Amino acid sequence: MSTRLERVIEKMKAAGLTQLIVSDPMSIRYLTGIWTDPYERLYALLVRTDGKHVFFLNHLFYVSNTGVEEVWFSDMDDQIGLMAEKIDESQVLGIDKVWPARFLIPLMERMPGLKVVLGSDCVDDCRAVKDAEEIAIMKKASEINDLVIQKAAEFVKPGMTEKQVAEFIDAEYLKAGASGNSFPTIVSFGANAADQHHEPSDTAVLHEGECVLIDMGCVWKGYCSDMTRTFYCKSQSEEEKVIYDLVYEAQENAIAAIKPGARFCDIDAEARKVINGAGYGEYWKIRLGHFIGQTDHEKGDVSPTNSATAEPGMIFSIEPGIYLPGKYGVRIEDLVLVTEDGYELLNHVDKHARVIG
Amino acid sequence: MSTRLERVIEKMKAAGLTQLIVSDPMSIRYLTGIWTDPYERLYALLVRTDGKHVFFLNHLFYVSNTGVEEVWFSDMDDQIGLMAEKIDESQVLGIDKVWPARFLIPLMERMPGLKVVLGSDCVDDCRAVKDAEEIAIMKKASEINDLVIQKAAEFVKPGMTEKQVAEFIDAEYLKAGASGNSFPTIVSFGANAADQHHEPSDTAVLHEGECVLIDMGCVWKGYCSDMTRTFYCKSQSEEEKVIYDLVYEAQENAIAAIKPGARFCDIDAEARKVINGAGYGEYWKIRLGHFIGQTDHEKGDVSPTNSATAEPGMIFSIEPGIYLPGKYGVRIEDLVLVTEDGYELLNHVDKHARVIG
Repeated sequence: MSTRLERVIEKMKAAGLTQLIVSDPMSIRYLTGIWTDPYERLYALLVRTDGKHVFFLNHLFYVSNTGVEEVWFSDMDDQIGLMAEKIDESQVLGIDKVWPARFLIPLMERMPGLKVVLGSDCVDDCRAVKDAEEIAIMKKASEINDLVIQKAAEFVKPGMTEKQVAEFIDAEYLKAGASGNSFPTIVSFGANAADQHHEPSDTAVLHEGECVLIDMGCVWKGYCSDMTRTFYCKSQSEEEKVIYDLVYEAQENAIAAIKPGARFCDIDAEARKVINGAGYGEYWKIRLGHFIGQTDHEKGDVSPTNSATAEPGMIFSIEPGIYLPGKYGVRIEDLVLVTEDGYELLNHVDKHARVIG
Repeated sequence: MSTRLERVIEKMKAAGLTQLIVSDPMSIRYLTGIWTDPYERLYALLVRTDGKHVFFLNHLFYVSNTGVEEVWFSDMDDQIGLMAEKIDESQVLGIDKVWPARFLIPLMERMPGLKVVLGSDCVDDCRAVKDAEEIAIMKKASEINDLVIQKAAEFVKPGMTEKQVAEFIDAEYLKAGASGNSFPTIVSFGANAADQHHEPSDTAVLHEGECVLIDMGCVWKGYCSDMTRTFYCKSQSEEEKVIYDLVYEAQENAIAAIKPGARFCDIDAEARKVINGAGYGEYWKIRLGHFIGQTDHEKGDVSPTNSATAEPGMIFSIEPGIYLPGKYGVRIEDLVLVTEDGYELLNHVDKHARVIG
């Protein structure tokens, strides 16, 4: 815990910051072990490089023994005023990227001389590099995901609705000990698979010959898993086979490029050159992958515009796809851990094209 | 729809604003009828008093026919730059209270001459006054809530866990046609009822003589209900009866004070003088109520610090309570609509002390 805070303080120093507002409840849990969901209320940890951290807490939160100075308030107090007392107006203040304007603008109005900058990278860049405890938890979360998707593949039959399959998966997560979903399960049949944000429908019924795209993840001990497989009900057409194999090759090539020092844009390019090279670039316009941890999408991505480099301990998704509007879609997604000399897959479910139903 | 935009523009003019960033997806739905969940991505409607509104949209959002100018971008574009092109740096810009620092700070850095102020009141104050369509929907959402809490009261038996009761309620909502919960159902037995943020436990078992506090709400057609009843398993002690009657009286008195022109602080005072007068003020330190609509907690509250006045069409909760740590808690909550000449309750479940089990 204090090691994590020390790492954040090092990054603050490197960024020229002496004070940083951390408000993301998951970042606060990461740094203090304390969890609360503040809903719309003010909840923040002021991290200072001199070690004099301050926790801003509403009496409605059942939080105790924080180990740092606590400033308590009620809904009726001048909360921003209490906060301003602890901030040094002569120093730049780092702000959490999720902090809403409802707090930031009044604070800036209260302290007109204060310079604010985005500062959550200091925490997010630490969160991006998982420690041994986090890696062990995330492996287990992905083990559950592997188990449940195999059950789902056996469960799916023609005539079922997307929603029915999604509910099966959600129930299996709980049976397997997960605390819930890391995001709403996506089950898309046929043309619906071309819509990357499709929500499982209770009227979309599976027909023979349709693809079954399942994108799913669960939470275990506060950490997320996330994987996608695209199956085929009863049969896969020749064209579908060609598209599937392209996505498969794109994913394999990108994964093979993962090692410490590799630039994320170069990893992305490995996948993109397969898909673009085959003339399907316009059907895959999004990033190759995203970081993951306490939330399904954490700071950091594998994309053409990210020239940062991979470090041991980072965990992210690799999920190329081809989405043909009105026809079908294919996505294959695994989580990958960067190791000292390469990578380790967190998912182990076979990803060759599979006919189910 | 356009009437709602016109009302917002009137409020902008009164606030001296010509341009306003609306980013709350529910506010955008309120103004345009369009719904999307942008997760962490940029999604905003720039409302301008000259009527030249601009919708900022990611290609990942399946949105169409917005009726206003659309600016589309991908994850890899300079989104803030595209936005800045549409903002007049010489005019004050209103900012949505929920807009996160990840967008606001880069926008301010890009436009150093721009003055920003919190501006979402222009929308929230419209959302606070429901129109006929919204009132009809919210009455139906509360009807479902009334129905389901009665079923829950009949369902509860000694030996059940809090979680079991909560799951029963959640399932009944879906059976009754609700699309889901407006917040996670709260079921608290005995001493747990003194913790206003208690989460239903799968180990807390109901014993005879314990109170059963249920705080629950569902969503119907995108609008929320919310109510609380405190029941007693098999028996209610004399002390519990005294406390219950105080909360009951506090709620009745506050509700009786509701009419157009009444100040929220005065409504709050009606409840507080009953509870404080009996010496229990230190066991009820929170606001009397909150506004509600598309979310369970919307802008606006019934509290000692809010001197705004009630207007016909406003809907809010009235929920006094007494919370005795380690012993038990009592809360009684109803939703109330302000009418032309007084008020109308949206909940109709009897609130006299009731023994169940």
